[in-house]
Amino acid sequence: MTTLFLIGIGTGNPDHVTGQAIGALNAADLILIPRKGSTKSDLAEVRELILARVLARPVPVAAYDVPTRAEQDDYLGAVNDWHDAIAKVWAETIAAHPGAQRIAVMVWGDPSLYDSTLRMAARLPGVTVRVIPGITSLQALTAAHAIPLNTLAAPVTITTGRNLRDHGWPEGATTLAVMLDKGGAFTAIDPAGVTIWWGAYVGMPEECLIHGPLAEVSDQILATRTRLRVEHGWIMDIYLLRRGGDV
Amino acid sequence: MTTLFLIGIGTGNPDHVTGQAIGALNAADLILIPRKGSTKSDLAEVRELILARVLARPVPVAAYDVPTRAEQDDYLGAVNDWHDAIAKVWAETIAAHPGAQRIAVMVWGDPSLYDSTLRMAARLPGVTVRVIPGITSLQALTAAHAIPLNTLAAPVTITTGRNLRDHGWPEGATTLAVMLDKGGAFTAIDPAGVTIWWGAYVGMPEECLIHGPLAEVSDQILATRTRLRVEHGWIMDIYLLRRGGDV
Repeated sequence: MTTLFLIGIGTGNPDHVTGQAIGALNAADLILIPRKGSTKSDLAEVRELILARVLARPVPVAAYDVPTRAEQDDYLGAVNDWHDAIAKVWAETIAAHPGAQRIAVMVWGDPSLYDSTLRMAARLPGVTVRVIPGITSLQALTAAHAIPLNTLAAPVTITTGRNLRDHGWPEGATTLAVMLDKGGAFTAIDPAGVTIWWGAYVGMPEECLIHGPLAEVSDQILATRTRLRVEHGWIMDIYLLRRGGDV
Repeated sequence: MTTLFLIGIGTGNPDHVTGQAIGALNAADLILIPRKGSTKSDLAEVRELILARVLARPVPVAAYDVPTRAEQDDYLGAVNDWHDAIAKVWAETIAAHPGAQRIAVMVWGDPSLYDSTLRMAARLPGVTVRVIPGITSLQALTAAHAIPLNTLAAPVTITTGRNLRDHGWPEGATTLAVMLDKGGAFTAIDPAGVTIWWGAYVGMPEECLIHGPLAEVSDQILATRTRLRVEHGWIMDIYLLRRGGDV
């Protein structure tokens, strides 16, 4: 019986890791981590840093090559193909370690939120999946700005940059958290009355925060994002948009 | 200079606590915790359990009496009055410990999500607020059910039982996470095509999970909720509703 543990590790701050995650990593027979050398090699390094810090006993670690996601018009089709490809790599890596029954995968943020590992895991036959929650970039963002996600008793919508760009501000929403933005999707909406709380590399030493009326800080965010991306070779950012109301 | 640390501690599983939270608790000069004896005394006990486990040095702990929230027609008014009252109790408790500069408050879940501590903290003059994120009940729910919060690339709305009851299913939403429900707000919507993933005491030893088509499990959830509430003297539950689509 194989159990796959999807373990949320937070957003790059090793101090985001919970006791539950540390326990699951130490109890694993095998830990799968993406091989270094990808464009986001910092992220692979954070995983190794966390393991070096939390493992109280030697646990075998298998590095796997992350397949490239095809750039095709059919976005969902491309994503599904990519999930298939990673699931195949995982299955082969696990098969190469026949004694391993408890397999751990370290997930950036939390396995529940705009993460693919649950869908990849569902493609592995005969595998039981267990999830260990972790701090998300959305939590790291609101913590860094010291703001609540919701206004008092009001709803919140979490969406993607693609959705904001394609469909605009969702009907009835006051607070909008935007993830997975390839850059500047907020320029697609009317900035009047909108406040933005933006963050890049939230929770990491490189953390950079900007907030203010969207109309006033939009250009600054775009320029900062471009500069940081060049400086670090990659960027991950996230933001909260709010129309009117209190924080 | 006084700094108030709002520290997310997760949902009752001491293993939800992060290294960052442990560090902040140990660095505090004073930790404020609600006094035991309230209806949710289990929650006060969890805080003491966590402190007993994570404090590596003696940190003064001040228990404060939690004011009662008035049951009045003006919901937001009552909540605001209650925030004023707790901020006053905090200010008095802090003033009674004149040497303390780093004050810690342990927050159930995460200070960003349907939590009042940021609003209470904003009422304290001359206090700098720092937030340490923690695992939310929403993450504990999706982890326990081993499901993603969002369907592939789609948005998610987080709302309250009150909003669902008063305003129905939000326009355009596919996935709806419902918190702070006094019980059975899901009976206010058309259950056709809706799946529910429900959980009570998520992350705690008492955890209880039910999922299935809303039309089929609605009564079971209501009955279970009533039984558990009697059994434990209190209940905290949360659920995810999804219309059609994949998990």
